[in-house]
Amino acid sequence: MALLRRLLLKFPSEVRCGPCLKYSTAAGEYGASLESIQEAATRIRPYANRTPVMTSDYLNDLSSRNLFFKCEIFQKGGAFKFRGGCNAVFSLSEETAAKGVVTHSSGNHAGALALAANMRKIPAFIVIPEGAPQCKLDAVTENGGKITQCFPSVPEREKTAAIIQEKTGATMIPPYNYGPVISGQGTMALEFLEQVAELDAIVVPVSGGGMLSGIAIAAKALKPAIKVIAAEPSGKNEAPDVALSKARGELVDLPVPDTIADGLRAKLGSLTWPIIRDHVDDVVIVKEEEIIVAMKLIFERMKVVVEPSGAVGLAAVLSNQFQVCEDLKACKNVGIILCGGNLDLEPLFQTYK
Amino acid sequence: MALLRRLLLKFPSEVRCGPCLKYSTAAGEYGASLESIQEAATRIRPYANRTPVMTSDYLNDLSSRNLFFKCEIFQKGGAFKFRGGCNAVFSLSEETAAKGVVTHSSGNHAGALALAANMRKIPAFIVIPEGAPQCKLDAVTENGGKITQCFPSVPEREKTAAIIQEKTGATMIPPYNYGPVISGQGTMALEFLEQVAELDAIVVPVSGGGMLSGIAIAAKALKPAIKVIAAEPSGKNEAPDVALSKARGELVDLPVPDTIADGLRAKLGSLTWPIIRDHVDDVVIVKEEEIIVAMKLIFERMKVVVEPSGAVGLAAVLSNQFQVCEDLKACKNVGIILCGGNLDLEPLFQTYK
Repeated sequence: MALLRRLLLKFPSEVRCGPCLKYSTAAGEYGASLESIQEAATRIRPYANRTPVMTSDYLNDLSSRNLFFKCEIFQKGGAFKFRGGCNAVFSLSEETAAKGVVTHSSGNHAGALALAANMRKIPAFIVIPEGAPQCKLDAVTENGGKITQCFPSVPEREKTAAIIQEKTGATMIPPYNYGPVISGQGTMALEFLEQVAELDAIVVPVSGGGMLSGIAIAAKALKPAIKVIAAEPSGKNEAPDVALSKARGELVDLPVPDTIADGLRAKLGSLTWPIIRDHVDDVVIVKEEEIIVAMKLIFERMKVVVEPSGAVGLAAVLSNQFQVCEDLKACKNVGIILCGGNLDLEPLFQTYK
Repeated sequence: MALLRRLLLKFPSEVRCGPCLKYSTAAGEYGASLESIQEAATRIRPYANRTPVMTSDYLNDLSSRNLFFKCEIFQKGGAFKFRGGCNAVFSLSEETAAKGVVTHSSGNHAGALALAANMRKIPAFIVIPEGAPQCKLDAVTENGGKITQCFPSVPEREKTAAIIQEKTGATMIPPYNYGPVISGQGTMALEFLEQVAELDAIVVPVSGGGMLSGIAIAAKALKPAIKVIAAEPSGKNEAPDVALSKARGELVDLPVPDTIADGLRAKLGSLTWPIIRDHVDDVVIVKEEEIIVAMKLIFERMKVVVEPSGAVGLAAVLSNQFQVCEDLKACKNVGIILCGGNLDLEPLFQTYK
């Protein structure tokens, strides 16, 4: 009974895990486990890119560390989100998959899910709030996803998705608070530690926590001494929820942060929070101007394209908070996730017209 | 006597090859040979990056080919120029090197030469015309290069550099019309064919022709059946000189092209022209708007930063001229050099302020 209650707590009823029960078993105490992440790695291998790790002498000097950048900007769809979406889509039974998948998202998850569904040749129904940038719509339609637009509010998004789900029997794939998605994102850590075994720390941007929790589970299981550090934008006016929740030891409910890191405008979930509570060592809060500086450094010095969210990890490592932290002084080899590279580049190309 | 005349033709007196006589011997009939390029590869190996090759399913579909991108944007200094500068600097004898190197350039060669000289711990005297972009000056000064600014005209640049050379005894390292520089650039082809042996063609941006001639020598020596294709911007008003020279079979002297591809505003030289005449299969002329489209595709689909010159190879492959060319129909596996990624990104970051 105690176990059941515990399981219920970890898999609350609003997350439909029906088709993934097999998966949930592998996930163990949390929404994901090393085993479920290893399964995910095998599952997505034929479809996802094994992304390269890059280094920069300039940024090593600047940070007084050896930095290793895991380039998820080179993942299919231009962001890490494809890992989770792909694992979720290919975890479904044939019968369930045939009815398709559904989600509501205005970000990288929408395009990633459409792409994964397209690879499995099943329908993807994507609810996108009105006013979302055209490039996000394009990423869905060019992968064959079916878009339904709705009024831009969370209740309206959820309602619209529920109606589609009811009508089609499609499986809801939430963007982060969902075991198969967390396990998919965790595959980054498996690869990263294979590529750079000597990592002392991994710094991971956080908002909903799907990427952070997946990486934390895998990295701590493989290398218990490794530090897993969250990099969280403070937003323009607010204290951020991950830092506050970690400090208090309980999930704090705050408004979604108002930050230029548009990929990080979400809140921790019921599955991601317990993992972050138990397995993340520290949270570094990053200011808006630090994100812009880091983004510029990555463009200019590494010659790769990152969206603001993708630069949050480097911003954290270069911040005073990170540099003076006693616990992190011994971390010489620091891994940073460049999590996405999807942004509106039009202002740059305007200059050539 | 005939041999001497021939040598004089290949090494005209305005290019001071004094310290490189040993090198010139290895260069054979032209300013460079497979042997001199292989020597260059050994020489620069401890300093230069072996740049990766990237692919893109999207761009493969768009071009109906298998495209392989040699990413010189990830070369030291952000452009292929470091290969030539490094080979030139490390070809010098101890005694000659100690007096330093000198060049006049407002482009990537200036920063690349300063960087190579810095690695050998010798002075680099760089003449830069007034009005050059700040980022080019920064690339020199942050590598310890000594800048002399001058009136922006070719005679003034040459005069200023000659005065410095006279005063310091530094060796002049021209940006492209110089054997050791051509051989350094040729190392790209050695690596590329090691990385992708099945290449049927290599498409190379051209202006002065240092990169194109080095690659042509190496690629044709290693794989005689390979096509080496020049990609040349037409500029805003003019017919381009490489296409015209190839068509006429003689070096045509035209004004420097007015193109957004600022790295390609130069003219063929006395050393590069004979190689291009004899070893380049075809020239594809690229329009300004095609360069912008290609640049955008590379940013958006490959998530890497290229300057306009760096996008000229893809622009050529996507052009109608390339797509309908009978000779190129059989070329399924096409290599493209992404030659540089140094550009002013400020307009992009302005949007976040």
